[in-house]
Amino acid sequence: MKYLGIDIGGMSVKCGVVSRDGSLLFKDAAPIRAGEADTEIVKDIAALAEDVLRKSGTDKSEICGVGIGCPGSVHDEKGVVRYSCNINFRNTPIVDMMKSLLNVEVVKVSNDANCAALGETLFGAGNGAENSVLVTLGTGVGTGIVVDGKLLTGNCSAGAEGGHIQINIGGATCGCKKRGHYEAYASATALISQVSEACAKHPDSLLAKYALEHGVDGKTVFTCAQMGDAVASETLQRYIEYVGAGLVTFANIFFPEVIIIGGGISNQGESFVKPLQKYVSENVYGAEYNPEIKVVAATLRNDAGIIGAAALCF
Amino acid sequence: MKYLGIDIGGMSVKCGVVSRDGSLLFKDAAPIRAGEADTEIVKDIAALAEDVLRKSGTDKSEICGVGIGCPGSVHDEKGVVRYSCNINFRNTPIVDMMKSLLNVEVVKVSNDANCAALGETLFGAGNGAENSVLVTLGTGVGTGIVVDGKLLTGNCSAGAEGGHIQINIGGATCGCKKRGHYEAYASATALISQVSEACAKHPDSLLAKYALEHGVDGKTVFTCAQMGDAVASETLQRYIEYVGAGLVTFANIFFPEVIIIGGGISNQGESFVKPLQKYVSENVYGAEYNPEIKVVAATLRNDAGIIGAAALCF
Repeated sequence: MKYLGIDIGGMSVKCGVVSRDGSLLFKDAAPIRAGEADTEIVKDIAALAEDVLRKSGTDKSEICGVGIGCPGSVHDEKGVVRYSCNINFRNTPIVDMMKSLLNVEVVKVSNDANCAALGETLFGAGNGAENSVLVTLGTGVGTGIVVDGKLLTGNCSAGAEGGHIQINIGGATCGCKKRGHYEAYASATALISQVSEACAKHPDSLLAKYALEHGVDGKTVFTCAQMGDAVASETLQRYIEYVGAGLVTFANIFFPEVIIIGGGISNQGESFVKPLQKYVSENVYGAEYNPEIKVVAATLRNDAGIIGAAALCF
Repeated sequence: MKYLGIDIGGMSVKCGVVSRDGSLLFKDAAPIRAGEADTEIVKDIAALAEDVLRKSGTDKSEICGVGIGCPGSVHDEKGVVRYSCNINFRNTPIVDMMKSLLNVEVVKVSNDANCAALGETLFGAGNGAENSVLVTLGTGVGTGIVVDGKLLTGNCSAGAEGGHIQINIGGATCGCKKRGHYEAYASATALISQVSEACAKHPDSLLAKYALEHGVDGKTVFTCAQMGDAVASETLQRYIEYVGAGLVTFANIFFPEVIIIGGGISNQGESFVKPLQKYVSENVYGAEYNPEIKVVAATLRNDAGIIGAAALCF
């Protein structure tokens, strides 16, 4: 049994042939004309899918379903992309359009973060867990949540917005303009602000000097902490507590087997994930009566979206 | 089709005959000998169940299942009460014990707050919603969460501990000893502390004088706010924002159709629920694209636990 997984992004769309055990057998990508009419965009996506079938030598009759991950607000049950920031989708009935263009019966769609969570949970870092939370630390904070092997989407697929949980009443302003949200403390963007503030406050620190020379990105504080700078270590420790606070909230609500950290910062590996594991284990409610919730870095990276999109049809 | 619902409490156990449409046909209660051996406690519970069948004229063959709600840490799948604060249950295999004592095939158990959530969602204030969060504001803060018509329990049934989400990093100390948890701000206990602090700060306020005369309970601040006292109004407004902060977190994660407020404070009705509704509607993420999440007071009161316990078997 084979499936197509399609991962739509603001710059390009990726498509792969995925087997029932989550193996990515073949993949290809094409640029996306994000500003065109949605009918044109979807035609391009269908053309890429046909292309992938041809290039991989897969007969369409072998395909049991086509799954699509798309950024933005997606109504899974209706098969509609209601709104996407960077792509010209507005109430686009992508499922029906793809069914008709590809002449296939089973097409499903979900938010791209959801698809990544499903892929990572079933076939990546989650190692087949039944319950997991994927927290992606990037420009913002995205979450994808799996409960009893199924994506949690909420009414009208409007849930799983874990970047906008309240962790610090009246605190830092979030991208959504409200205050005290997780994203305002735990995103890569927030980390960069925190590092910049620390540099301004401690201009003589190694961190400040390094930042002046190399600029600040998500790696800066890790590099300087490893070089033994106390300001960097403190800043990193505080960031870990911010990230941890949200993870504990998810842990206490879902008590999943695993929490998966995605996004560029997760590339820091053990130096980031290990202290987070410690924080969660020390702070989760009922730790003494229950198995430890594992905190791990995502492993499928860029393929999680394709594999997870295909898994919508499993 | 009829079911038995059993709601175990620290002082007494209640048992009722419940029909498939959630009607409570008959109920009775018995004291619980909470400190005895668990075998004795369970025998008493079984005796009450037999009693209820007899008194209600129900033949055991009519009963399709027996559901049990129990306070403490319950492992639903194993049918075991791992630990209960006020009742002498320690790894008590209550499901197997009741099956054997009552000679029935279907017995299920869950945490009592979960059962109340299921009852309220299906047959009470939730009005049959598929997704809901019941937040009970009492000595602590309990939550019961329904996702796609099923209770969210988490791995080993250790989840749904919504009283221990982080809402204010480094803030007030919770009953579990950690800081900044929802329970430390939103429980009735927390409200009483907040009122007492306000009284100490503003000894000339009507609130302080009223408190001195009548003592402080969960109603004090509502009464004095209605009497026009500014200190009471401010204190209440801040409490509503605390409660609201947690509700918005649940809303952003679950996007349920309904959030149900339980516990003594929910008796305040509209003067409490209406401002909470406003807070949630103004602060939930994606409000402009989605139906409003309703915030309502629980309606089944003391029967929610019995009806919800029975509903475990539906």
